[in-house]
Amino acid sequence: MKLKELAEKLGLKFRGDPETEIERVASLESADKKCVSFFTNPRLLKKLLTTKAGAVIISEKDCPKDVDFAAIFSEDPAESFRQAMIILNPPKKTEPTISELAFIADEAEIGKDVRIEPFVVIGKSKIGDRCVIHAGVVIGDGVEIGHDCEIYPNVVIYDGVTIGNRVIIHAGAVIGSDGFGYTRDKNGRFNKIPQLGSVIIEDDVEIGANTTIDRATLDNTIIGAGTKIDNLVQIGHNVIIGKHCSISGQAGIAGSTKIGDRVMIGGQAGISDHIELGDDVTIYAQSGVDKSFPSGITLFGSPARRARETLKQLAALKKLPEIIDKLTKKQNKSS
Amino acid sequence: MKLKELAEKLGLKFRGDPETEIERVASLESADKKCVSFFTNPRLLKKLLTTKAGAVIISEKDCPKDVDFAAIFSEDPAESFRQAMIILNPPKKTEPTISELAFIADEAEIGKDVRIEPFVVIGKSKIGDRCVIHAGVVIGDGVEIGHDCEIYPNVVIYDGVTIGNRVIIHAGAVIGSDGFGYTRDKNGRFNKIPQLGSVIIEDDVEIGANTTIDRATLDNTIIGAGTKIDNLVQIGHNVIIGKHCSISGQAGIAGSTKIGDRVMIGGQAGISDHIELGDDVTIYAQSGVDKSFPSGITLFGSPARRARETLKQLAALKKLPEIIDKLTKKQNKSS
Amino acid sequence: MKLKELAEKLGLKFRGDPETEIERVASLESADKKCVSFFTNPRLLKKLLTTKAGAVIISEKDCPKDVDFAAIFSEDPAESFRQAMIILNPPKKTEPTISELAFIADEAEIGKDVRIEPFVVIGKSKIGDRCVIHAGVVIGDGVEIGHDCEIYPNVVIYDGVTIGNRVIIHAGAVIGSDGFGYTRDKNGRFNKIPQLGSVIIEDDVEIGANTTIDRATLDNTIIGAGTKIDNLVQIGHNVIIGKHCSISGQAGIAGSTKIGDRVMIGGQAGISDHIELGDDVTIYAQSGVDKSFPSGITLFGSPARRARETLKQLAALKKLPEIIDKLTKKQNKSS
Repeated sequence: MKLKELAEKLGLKFRGDPETEIERVASLESADKKCVSFFTNPRLLKKLLTTKAGAVIISEKDCPKDVDFAAIFSEDPAESFRQAMIILNPPKKTEPTISELAFIADEAEIGKDVRIEPFVVIGKSKIGDRCVIHAGVVIGDGVEIGHDCEIYPNVVIYDGVTIGNRVIIHAGAVIGSDGFGYTRDKNGRFNKIPQLGSVIIEDDVEIGANTTIDRATLDNTIIGAGTKIDNLVQIGHNVIIGKHCSISGQAGIAGSTKIGDRVMIGGQAGISDHIELGDDVTIYAQSGVDKSFPSGITLFGSPARRARETLKQLAALKKLPEIIDKLTKKQNKSS
Repeated sequence: MKLKELAEKLGLKFRGDPETEIERVASLESADKKCVSFFTNPRLLKKLLTTKAGAVIISEKDCPKDVDFAAIFSEDPAESFRQAMIILNPPKKTEPTISELAFIADEAEIGKDVRIEPFVVIGKSKIGDRCVIHAGVVIGDGVEIGHDCEIYPNVVIYDGVTIGNRVIIHAGAVIGSDGFGYTRDKNGRFNKIPQLGSVIIEDDVEIGANTTIDRATLDNTIIGAGTKIDNLVQIGHNVIIGKHCSISGQAGIAGSTKIGDRVMIGGQAGISDHIELGDDVTIYAQSGVDKSFPSGITLFGSPARRARETLKQLAALKKLPEIIDKLTKKQNKSS
Repeated sequence: MKLKELAEKLGLKFRGDPETEIERVASLESADKKCVSFFTNPRLLKKLLTTKAGAVIISEKDCPKDVDFAAIFSEDPAESFRQAMIILNPPKKTEPTISELAFIADEAEIGKDVRIEPFVVIGKSKIGDRCVIHAGVVIGDGVEIGHDCEIYPNVVIYDGVTIGNRVIIHAGAVIGSDGFGYTRDKNGRFNKIPQLGSVIIEDDVEIGANTTIDRATLDNTIIGAGTKIDNLVQIGHNVIIGKHCSISGQAGIAGSTKIGDRVMIGGQAGISDHIELGDDVTIYAQSGVDKSFPSGITLFGSPARRARETLKQLAALKKLPEIIDKLTKKQNKSS
């Protein structure tokens, strides 16, 4: 694709030879003259000055004045580069076909142009149009999956789960397993509480590899539209997560907790059961949130408190050994 | 089912119209008149007063005197509600059948009334009566599984693992993978130590989705009877866990550690290798237990200490920034 | 095998009856007279004195002078015992055979003496000689796997991943899932960044059960030769890990981080994105590494600092409640 054509598709102005052939995307370091790259971090200026990229997506204000290279100008180079990635690498068309090696219940309703690979099992469930169900996926009874979903290999979806449109679920994830609920008798023995509820995954959610989302005891565990969940995340039963949240790898949310919209949860963070977080909350990695917090707050630490407060405590703790040394010397002197 | 019949099956007294038709269980909020609900938390009194439930399971002492609603009286409403859940939602009978699409070794011994779904692989192993082996499960050679077990889709059980009766294993769990054991040579290179032992899962254990339990180097990794393990938990090789323990999501127990009975381990907690914990130990979420502790102790923090001690330290740390401020001012004044 | 023969194969001196029959390996406690055991920890001397083992691998300096038992002398008894384990338990020969119940693309290139079990799916990919691909494994298109690899059941390998020789991947692991990358628009909505790179696993790597390794956005996520990864570990996109590292269970490494050779990462430790660690770094369990560190350092805490520093702070924190008590009393007295 010619540079002028790429810029046009991106809806952006450019400079340099309009006929330059651009074939691929690449980072500044690994780009060659057939590549478009992008620049967002002024600290990496050296990489910009030495790149072999055929063109660089850059904001006009970050563009060094005295250097001459082919550029596409964007106010948001990362987003424009993302679009260039899609333009230059259109998603592989997977052939719609239903493998003869899949086992599909007679009562299942399969939409148009669906791809079902070998060794898939689908119970009395409904699969929307243009879904891709990769090899080894197991879907129980009473499941409803919307249109344009991609379910990667060996995912398991238990009975009764509802999944929206354009949902992506990566390999090995488990949706709808029993919540961790027991009563305990006088001798400390556990009796299993039936987990009669289910899970609702709304539109445009992406779920990472080997992530687990438990079904509710009653009602539903809910993942709001547009929320993105990384690998190895644990979502407990009855949890309700808002829209457009981001949950990083190995984070965990315990049962019956409710989380607002656009909440950002760092890696390995944990959130206790039966609490409530407002909208636009940010939680740093490895934090442990043990109580409810209102909208807009930034949390850090285990137990998690306002990040500013925790950072102040950590700074003080750093000084503590020296302070104790001084106090001890003083005491020894005065005694 | 009529209210009087439900109360009778629960062995409990009730008040209200004995002929009231109860069809389902529900929380106080989502119940309608065909539902039985339950009440345990006096702080939720408002929900009790506004519920549309046809009947509420409640303790006589918590029951408001001046309000008239149909009630079933229980000293343990949560347990009675659990029983009502089972009475009103008897577990689905899964048809015992062995799929022609399963691959079962000729030497395998399969009990009576077993259900084996498509794309299951079973080696030279023994499966007890009335087990349900869901789709995609892989069971190696020399495995013994007791009666009435349910193994959810895509679980993997390595060679030689022994599993008791009434064990439930959720989707994607891996039992008997190699322990993480190597010797290290002078150049820092690792040599794999063969993992020749195995895993014993005793009766009535439940194991969560995508949890991993490693086989022992020698002897056995053991999960004691009645212990319940949540999702994404890691149990290292040679670990011995007692009876009736509860291990919450994403907790990890490192190799050769021994844990007593009725130990409660919070989510994302970690326990070091080669240590020993007594009976009835409680470990808070995200704690890191780095040494042995006796029975009955409650632990918190990383490194974990008696919860009381850790809480005292956290309270002191909270005051520290202000104290340092004062000390600094004082010093400045006196100098 | 006779004691003299075992010692000879190990290349070690021994004492005791050369004709003693040794059949198995065992720990000091569970050994009988047909077993060889080993001794490394002088604190376990009692176990040595009471063992029924037919022979014990021990260093000459640790060997009690006045006690008479059959011994094999080694400067590294753990390593010699490891070798004895292999000598006495040669790995099971798995019969090379390609199951008729596997689904293999016509264009796939399968090496010599490969074993492929039922319900395996292999796309247009290349599998080296003597590999064992267990049941339920799904391998996409464009994957290259070297010689002598073992891929345990239900592993998923996405398109384009490259795997070296003698790599072991345990059940349920996922290699090459999409990295967690999005741009975010003004309304806080996420747009997926295509993950166009891949994953390279070098020779002699072992990967634990249900571990996840994401593909790079561009270029490759790389796991260096000889590195060993435990269960439930998360490796983010674009991460580069050096050679001969050890990564314990439930640790996580966020995107674009670069790690040197022989780095030891404890269980549940987390490493932030876009940082760099030198060679021979040691990270304690549950630590949270939030910035770059040079070679040779030992890190502890969240945020992780030099272990010595963190330990000093923890010791000071322990004294803090008492110090505050004293200061308060003093103040009350002086006021």
